[in-house]
Amino acid sequence: MFTNRIYNFSAGPSILPDPVLSQAARELLNYAGTGTSVMEMSHRSKDFLAIFEETKALSKEALAIPESHEILYLQGGAWTQFAMIPMNLIGTTGKADYAVTGSFSKLAAKEAGKYGDIHIAASSEDKNNTYIPAQSALDLRSDAAYFHYCDNNTIYGTEWNYLPQTGNVPLVCDMSSNILSKPIDVSDFGLIYAGAQKNMAPAGLTVVIIDKGLTGHELAYTPTMLSYKTQVEKDSMHNTPSTYNIYILGLVLKWIKGQGGLAGMAKYNAEKAGILYDFLDESKLFKGCAEKEARSLMNVTFVTGDDELDSAFVKAAAAKGLTNLKGHRSVGGMRASIYNAMPIEGVRALVAFMKEFEANR
Amino acid sequence: MFTNRIYNFSAGPSILPDPVLSQAARELLNYAGTGTSVMEMSHRSKDFLAIFEETKALSKEALAIPESHEILYLQGGAWTQFAMIPMNLIGTTGKADYAVTGSFSKLAAKEAGKYGDIHIAASSEDKNNTYIPAQSALDLRSDAAYFHYCDNNTIYGTEWNYLPQTGNVPLVCDMSSNILSKPIDVSDFGLIYAGAQKNMAPAGLTVVIIDKGLTGHELAYTPTMLSYKTQVEKDSMHNTPSTYNIYILGLVLKWIKGQGGLAGMAKYNAEKAGILYDFLDESKLFKGCAEKEARSLMNVTFVTGDDELDSAFVKAAAAKGLTNLKGHRSVGGMRASIYNAMPIEGVRALVAFMKEFEANR
Repeated sequence: MFTNRIYNFSAGPSILPDPVLSQAARELLNYAGTGTSVMEMSHRSKDFLAIFEETKALSKEALAIPESHEILYLQGGAWTQFAMIPMNLIGTTGKADYAVTGSFSKLAAKEAGKYGDIHIAASSEDKNNTYIPAQSALDLRSDAAYFHYCDNNTIYGTEWNYLPQTGNVPLVCDMSSNILSKPIDVSDFGLIYAGAQKNMAPAGLTVVIIDKGLTGHELAYTPTMLSYKTQVEKDSMHNTPSTYNIYILGLVLKWIKGQGGLAGMAKYNAEKAGILYDFLDESKLFKGCAEKEARSLMNVTFVTGDDELDSAFVKAAAAKGLTNLKGHRSVGGMRASIYNAMPIEGVRALVAFMKEFEANR
Repeated sequence: MFTNRIYNFSAGPSILPDPVLSQAARELLNYAGTGTSVMEMSHRSKDFLAIFEETKALSKEALAIPESHEILYLQGGAWTQFAMIPMNLIGTTGKADYAVTGSFSKLAAKEAGKYGDIHIAASSEDKNNTYIPAQSALDLRSDAAYFHYCDNNTIYGTEWNYLPQTGNVPLVCDMSSNILSKPIDVSDFGLIYAGAQKNMAPAGLTVVIIDKGLTGHELAYTPTMLSYKTQVEKDSMHNTPSTYNIYILGLVLKWIKGQGGLAGMAKYNAEKAGILYDFLDESKLFKGCAEKEARSLMNVTFVTGDDELDSAFVKAAAAKGLTNLKGHRSVGGMRASIYNAMPIEGVRALVAFMKEFEANR
């Protein structure tokens, strides 16, 4: 950690690796001797296209993206995908199934309702989204155009611990808050999407990985920019993409490669989360919110059971350079977001402070 | 100009002011003693909201935006606006009029055709878009929901030299390549939009200024993210906006303020363009493409009349640090984009090189 940098536990936009930021700062005015900033490069220039192709190659390598799938660098965040997905994919049967395990999956299902017949295949709302419904609890329709779920629920601190089995129905997965945190088998999915601002890059970039066989069925009124077919055909360059964010993503992917790729990240993330969850399990003051088998390795939610004490803790932690630990406004309590870029020293510092806070009561 | 920085005449993404890039580099890892990068700040954090509010206040001050209008910081570029505009505005009458004065206005009209009855009120295609149709040539419908035109045509190097008079029909204007280049009266417009990557900020931010009275008529299938009503109500924060781009826009606006605001920029831009056009008018080798009264102050297009000589010129100029002078692939020749951030020294260097090139033939 650089001097005077803090441990930022923000859920997103969130911490980026120090070496990435340092390199970006060094070459901000003059990238690799070109005499220009990456921010100033035409997206069709030779210099930027080299960055774009490298980022794409690193993305494909990290996630082992098969030939059947394409990776897209879009804009508008996960919320734009909430509409873009049904506009492009629901046309085949007019139906789609959604699992609701948090705020964003619920909003995704609601938005999709504008475009077809949406069925809630499972919901964890009965227990305030503290768990993930079991495979046996999924009420699936065999004629759904796709099954949508959110793999990691940032607000509630839960993460799917299994891959839903849906027969021939393609999986569509929101991985906004856990993409690049562990290896996945992309061929299991029809579509994966993620806002960049947690594990990838600054806000303003949305990554989509799509089975090319699913494109070409968009509804007639779909905006050109919201057509996966167009974006695949134009290699994300139907218009100017968010070029600087793509450059930063490339730096992040190089950093991940240096950490041992996604296998290395998964090991590191499990170790970090383990330190925090182990402490929560032994603490008499702090209590984890999510059911054990559904615990997220990215967002750790916890409470003391006393709102005033929660606030006092968040404030005292911030004074020690452990910031943004306040839980989402819809659930309260605390949330420590420990994405790839959060160093293990940050988690250790947090647990040390929690112990001190508990001891001093 | 900093040592080893070049004069980048790219049409977009394009040159940014050196002081802006220098400040961004200095505070990239630690913004104003917060211990975090702006890239890492939650969009709802106090630190980022202060940046957001300052950028918004500077935007409103620079453009003198009246109370009737709101400014939005969106994503997806002008191309997303090509659909968002009719989706939100055409519902009142089902009809809209478009002037076609270049590639982008033609594409905007085509995209709008998905959502209603589009009428081409005027076109300059008969003379390869080298001119702007006169007011008397506009074939307007009084029941159009809006009249759309593109104020500056980046590819052809033309700029509207008058404000279209359309009675009660609101003006919708694409100002992607000349926003912030001169003072405008925002109250003349129903909606103004612009991709940021020419005169404002890195690619990934789209600025929209809308008369709030025009919101609330979106077609039923409009994605939530593409509803102006939602974006106005949520102050551009329905989801995470492109935070870093907004921060850079704030720096650019402070720089503009230091140059005397938009009146200062207009004077500077007229002087810069004057140097280039004066030379084109006297040169025996180089010839300006646009009709004199339609000349753009932002994008200066010219040719020698010999494709091979054009290529030789572009190549030789690049070797002298005068880069990206090649005309758009659809028209050929040369184009010097001299946005706000291009210093007058860059224009003088270009003209000096053109003279040298002409003398040495």
